[in-house]
Amino acid sequence: MSRRGRFITLEGGEGAGKSTLLAGLHTHLLEQGVSLVQVREPGGTPLGEAIRSIVLDPAHLAISAESEMLLMFASRAQLVRERILPALDAGQWVLCDRYVDASYAYQGGGRGQPVERIAELERWVCADVTPDLTLLLDLPVSTGRARAAGRGAADRIEVEADTFFERVRNAYRERAQAQPQRFRVIDASLPPDTVLAMAIAATGHLFKVAP
Amino acid sequence: MSRRGRFITLEGGEGAGKSTLLAGLHTHLLEQGVSLVQVREPGGTPLGEAIRSIVLDPAHLAISAESEMLLMFASRAQLVRERILPALDAGQWVLCDRYVDASYAYQGGGRGQPVERIAELERWVCADVTPDLTLLLDLPVSTGRARAAGRGAADRIEVEADTFFERVRNAYRERAQAQPQRFRVIDASLPPDTVLAMAIAATGHLFKVAP
Repeated sequence: MSRRGRFITLEGGEGAGKSTLLAGLHTHLLEQGVSLVQVREPGGTPLGEAIRSIVLDPAHLAISAESEMLLMFASRAQLVRERILPALDAGQWVLCDRYVDASYAYQGGGRGQPVERIAELERWVCADVTPDLTLLLDLPVSTGRARAAGRGAADRIEVEADTFFERVRNAYRERAQAQPQRFRVIDASLPPDTVLAMAIAATGHLFKVAP
Repeated sequence: MSRRGRFITLEGGEGAGKSTLLAGLHTHLLEQGVSLVQVREPGGTPLGEAIRSIVLDPAHLAISAESEMLLMFASRAQLVRERILPALDAGQWVLCDRYVDASYAYQGGGRGQPVERIAELERWVCADVTPDLTLLLDLPVSTGRARAAGRGAADRIEVEADTFFERVRNAYRERAQAQPQRFRVIDASLPPDTVLAMAIAATGHLFKVAP
């Protein structure tokens, strides 16, 4: 009956150029006539934005790794049910700034939470809402942090050490290697126009796949 | 070496008289020379109180059952690590206004979240931090709600229907029946002085158990 929409997620570390790419990709998809919903994690719903303000607040440095993981999935559960699933069911496309891969990278790789727990939470929370395409903007940590440094006050996660972000990057790359059919890794050190062109090329097959 | 403190939790539905009993029990334990830490759920830490303000806010009526469950455990994970475990390890007693049994009652019985998921989260979050004694103030739903009605604005959970609170009560009673060595069920329709006396009697064995 109804054609299910496409679900695209964008992942990457600090300073990888996610915001710039999101804006360009958003414009491109609208130009293709796609009915598009853009959301972000954590956030994207009133509940999720309230959670975002807690987990990124540098005043909450005492958040345990377990609590952080559960808060991210609490935001995600709401986002899936309130925004992503209804949009996909209505045939809209969803462009999401970070999704469950970010938990494998940050809470798993970064904070050391066991992969099995993250996978269990993914089964409960995300059900069958898996991205059709995940764009991973990959960049050496030092390059990304140098870029991000000019942005003003760092949030609670951005103040972590380089070794934390190295683990995040490695976890992202391992996810991408394990699921090559879903991931497209883009070298984020390339010029923004090139990155956008590569991302647009990666979306091509989403238009061709039968309903 | 060090003597581990005792962990007492207080559970019950709306209008069961938890606050009155907590105050009386607190006073009694201090009179016995116990070094006492009193906390509540959700809450008890800066993170937990921020989560509490979200989950009880009537403006957040759209919180999914999954998100509510994860938020409760996010608060609990922080409370266990930041307050309960350090206190017990230091030989202090902990008196907690609701704990993991509340998730079995409210998120399980009330919202229908699967018991296996709650049990899995309990294993991750609570580890071996199990109450030595859980006092369950049991009361017919209609009686409790009539008592609670005089208190002013209801929070997001208090506005639920009677059928919700019947399921909560049943889930609490089932937990108590399944673990009679830990639970003491107190008829909360008795006068407050009697309830307090029964609660105090229930704590007696905690003083006698060897370190």
